[in-house]
Amino acid sequence: MDYCSTAEKMQNLLGDKWVITDEEIVTGYARESTSESYGLVCPGPEGECILVKPESSEEVAEIMQYACEEGIAVIPKGAGTSLSANAIPEGPGLILSLERMNDIVEIDRDNMMITCQAGVTLGQLLEELAGSDIYFPLHPGDEGAQVGGMAAMNAGGVRAVRHGVMQDQVVGLEAVLPTGEIESFGGSEKKLLKDNSGYNLKDLLIGSEGTLAVITEVTLKLYPEPDFNGTLIVSFASRLEAFEAETEIRKMGIIPMAVEYVEKKQIEMAARDIGKSWPASEGEAYLMIMLAEDSEDDFYRKAADIQKLEDEFEINGISVADTTREEKEILEIRSHILPAIQEEIVDSPDVTVPPANLPDYLQILEEFENEYNTELPVVAHAGDGNLHVLILKEEGGKPAYFGELKKKIYRKAVDLGGTITGEHGVGRLRLDYLPLQISSRQLEIMWGIKQVFDPENILNPGKKIKEFNINKG
Amino acid sequence: MDYCSTAEKMQNLLGDKWVITDEEIVTGYARESTSESYGLVCPGPEGECILVKPESSEEVAEIMQYACEEGIAVIPKGAGTSLSANAIPEGPGLILSLERMNDIVEIDRDNMMITCQAGVTLGQLLEELAGSDIYFPLHPGDEGAQVGGMAAMNAGGVRAVRHGVMQDQVVGLEAVLPTGEIESFGGSEKKLLKDNSGYNLKDLLIGSEGTLAVITEVTLKLYPEPDFNGTLIVSFASRLEAFEAETEIRKMGIIPMAVEYVEKKQIEMAARDIGKSWPASEGEAYLMIMLAEDSEDDFYRKAADIQKLEDEFEINGISVADTTREEKEILEIRSHILPAIQEEIVDSPDVTVPPANLPDYLQILEEFENEYNTELPVVAHAGDGNLHVLILKEEGGKPAYFGELKKKIYRKAVDLGGTITGEHGVGRLRLDYLPLQISSRQLEIMWGIKQVFDPENILNPGKKIKEFNINKG
Repeated sequence: MDYCSTAEKMQNLLGDKWVITDEEIVTGYARESTSESYGLVCPGPEGECILVKPESSEEVAEIMQYACEEGIAVIPKGAGTSLSANAIPEGPGLILSLERMNDIVEIDRDNMMITCQAGVTLGQLLEELAGSDIYFPLHPGDEGAQVGGMAAMNAGGVRAVRHGVMQDQVVGLEAVLPTGEIESFGGSEKKLLKDNSGYNLKDLLIGSEGTLAVITEVTLKLYPEPDFNGTLIVSFASRLEAFEAETEIRKMGIIPMAVEYVEKKQIEMAARDIGKSWPASEGEAYLMIMLAEDSEDDFYRKAADIQKLEDEFEINGISVADTTREEKEILEIRSHILPAIQEEIVDSPDVTVPPANLPDYLQILEEFENEYNTELPVVAHAGDGNLHVLILKEEGGKPAYFGELKKKIYRKAVDLGGTITGEHGVGRLRLDYLPLQISSRQLEIMWGIKQVFDPENILNPGKKIKEFNINKG
Repeated sequence: MDYCSTAEKMQNLLGDKWVITDEEIVTGYARESTSESYGLVCPGPEGECILVKPESSEEVAEIMQYACEEGIAVIPKGAGTSLSANAIPEGPGLILSLERMNDIVEIDRDNMMITCQAGVTLGQLLEELAGSDIYFPLHPGDEGAQVGGMAAMNAGGVRAVRHGVMQDQVVGLEAVLPTGEIESFGGSEKKLLKDNSGYNLKDLLIGSEGTLAVITEVTLKLYPEPDFNGTLIVSFASRLEAFEAETEIRKMGIIPMAVEYVEKKQIEMAARDIGKSWPASEGEAYLMIMLAEDSEDDFYRKAADIQKLEDEFEINGISVADTTREEKEILEIRSHILPAIQEEIVDSPDVTVPPANLPDYLQILEEFENEYNTELPVVAHAGDGNLHVLILKEEGGKPAYFGELKKKIYRKAVDLGGTITGEHGVGRLRLDYLPLQISSRQLEIMWGIKQVFDPENILNPGKKIKEFNINKG
C-alpha cells in the first residue's frame, strides 16, 4: 500500500474528516481489549494503517473497489468486543470502522423484524425496543457490540438456549464483497423466513469474521415480550452437581431462555465491583435459570418442577427473582464477570461440547487443576454446552505451563465431540489450534471459499489459512 | 463412464445384489413424481445409469473415490419427494440411493437429539418417537421423505413457524465429499449447539441439493411434547382477509406451531379423496392455526385472542380441534392436497415473500387470474410467507401462457423481496429462473464453491451453473 496516495484517495472518497492517520487513534483501533491482558503481540500496524469511517454501503463499496484494484488489505471493524483478536491488522492496510453506519433503518411490526445498519450497537437496539411489547433476546455481555460485528462473529452469550445464536436471529443481510459489489442476502428486503434458492451464502457470511465480506446492514427477528419473566438461582455444593442438574432440566422438557453457570468467587467479585450483591449466599456453584413464560402460573409451575431437583442433588437453596429490576441486576452482575477478572487471567477458551457432556469435561478440568496445581474457574452458558475456562495468571504473567494446558483444554473438548470456540470465534487467538478440530480437507475447502469470495485476499487477510494449513494441517 | 467396468467395480465394492442395471428399475429411480405431471422431459438416463445401494458411509466413500478418479457422475438419491426434479441424472452415471442406510443410530435424551442414517424416513422417525414425551416438529407432507434428503433439500412444510425449517433442526451431520473423504460437521459427535470454528460448512451443505456432498448421517434436535395441542380453523369470506389476519396474529404476539392457508375447493377435494370430511363448511378460505401450549389454559387464552379477529375481519366461523385424533386428521387432509390435485396442475411454484407482503402478492395473483382468464388456487405455509401457486392444466396439458405466467409469478415474488423457492429447492424446475433473483456475482460465487468441493464436477452435476450463468446471468 502506498500510504500517501491511499490516504489521498480515501479523503477524496469520504472527506478529510473520516480518514484518520493520527498514530495514537489508529493504534487504538488496531487493538482489542484482549491484546494486552492476554499478552497478545500485535505486529506493528502503527503508522502503517489508515482508519476510514464510511457512512454508507456505497462508500464501503467504493473503498473495496479501490482496495481490490490496488491489492490493499482492509480490516472491517465493529466494536472489537468479541475478544478473539479477530480484527487486528497484521500489516499495512485500511481499518474500516462501521461506527458511523448506526441508523436503525426500520422496526417492522408486521413481520416482527428490525433492520439496522451494521454499526448500531446492541445497547442502542435494546434501548429502541425498551418499553415496547417486542424484544431481541441475545445478550453477549458487552452492549457496545455492534450488530454487524455480532453477525460477522456469530455472537452468542446469555439467552441463546431458547432462540439460538446470532445466526438464528439474522433473517437477511446486506454486505459489500471484497470485489466491491453491494449484495443482499435473504431477498431484496432481507426479510425472508425461508429461502432455498441456491447455496446458503447468508449463513456462510455469518461467523466468517470479516474475511468474506463487509456486512453493512442486518435484519433481525424480534419476539413478543413474554408475559412473565423470572430467574431462579439454584445453589449447589459442587460444580459437577450443577452441570448434572442442567441435563435434568432439559430432560424435564423445560426450555428456559438461558441457563448460566457461575461460581461463587467470580460472581461475588463481579457484584462487588459494581456495588451490588449476589442474591445467593450458600453454595459454591450456581445455575441461573431464566424462564420466560406465557403466564405467572406457567412460571411457578416450572419453578416447582425445577425445585424437584432437590430430591436428586445437594442443593443449598433456590432464590427467585421475579421482578424486572431484580432480573436486570442479576444479568448485570453476570455480564460483569469478565471485566472484573480480565486482569487476572491470561486466556479464557470458550470451548463447547454437547451439553450433556459438560460433567465429563468438568472432571477433566479437575484433573488439569491437580496436574498444574492451579485453579481453573469456569463460567458457562451451560444450556448450550458452552464453557469459558479461565486460565489464571501466575506472578502477574503467563504461567510456564500455559501453552501446554491451553492445547490440552482444546484437545479434550474436541475429543468429547466439542469445538475450540462456541461463540467468540477463531481470530488470531485460536487460529493455530484449528487443526485440532478441523480436518485438512475441510481447511482446504475453507481456504478455497475464501479465494472464491476474495481472489486478491485483501479482506481481513491475517495469516493465510492456506499457509497455516500446509504447515500444520 | 465405461458401463461394464463401472458395473463390475461397483459389484466388487457392494456385492452383486446392490448394483442394479435393470432398465425399468433404474429408470424409476431416474424420475420424480413431478417429471410426468409437470411435463418435464428427462433426458435419457435409461440404460446408461447404474443404480447403487451402499449400506455404510465407508461404502459411499469408496464409490465416491472411484467416481472421482474416473470422472463418473454420481446422483445422490433420497426418496425423491422434493418435487423440484433435483435428483434426476442428465446423462450416464451412478444413481446412489441412500435407502439401505436406514438405521436410527441413537435417541439421546440427555441432549434431546436423535441421530439417523440418511435413509431413515420421516415416517420411521415419527413412529420411533410416537407415544414418548419428545417429538420432531417438521412435516413436509410426504412421510416417505428421507432425513438425509430433507437436509440436502432444506425441507420445510407444516410446523416450521415456531421451530424453523430443516436447517434449524440439524445440529450436525456426516457427509462424504465428492473427493471421497468422510467428514463430520458439528463436532465429531455431531451434537454441537454452538460452533464458531471456521466457516459454517454444515449449513452450506444443507440445501445444496446433493451437489456438494453426500449426506450420510444427521443429528436432529428434538423438543419436549407440548402439554396441550390444538388446531383452530378460521373461515374467511376472501383469501385477502385470511392473509391480512395472519399478520394480525403475529402482531398479537402469538407464535403458533403452524399457520397454514388452504382454500375450500382443494381442501374438500383432498378430504374426499381419503374419505374424510373437512370440519369447516362455511367460508372460502381458511387459516389452520396449530397451537402447542404449556397448558389447556394457555391454549384457550390464545384461542380467545385469535377469536378477536372477528372484530376486524369477516369471519364465517372458527372450529377448534382439541383432540389428538382430530388434529391428526386435519393434518392428514392438509398433507393430501398435493396428491389430490397433482394430475390437474402443470406446476406449483413455491415462492416466498416476507410474510406481511402476502396480501400484496395475493392481489398480484388476482391480476394474473384476470389477465389469463384462469384460476390460480393457492396453498400456503402462511406463517412463513411461503406460498404454493397452483398453475392448472388446460385441456389436459400446459396452457399456452404457461411459460410467461410462471416467469411473472417468480418475478413479482422477487420484486416483493421474495425468493423463487422457499422450500422445494431449485432442481431442474427452477434453474433457469435463478438469475431473476440471484445476482451474477452471487451465482459466480456459488459456482466457485461447487468447484472447491467438487473439482471434477461429478456430484449431481446437472446443467453446469457456470454455463448457465454465462448465458443468462
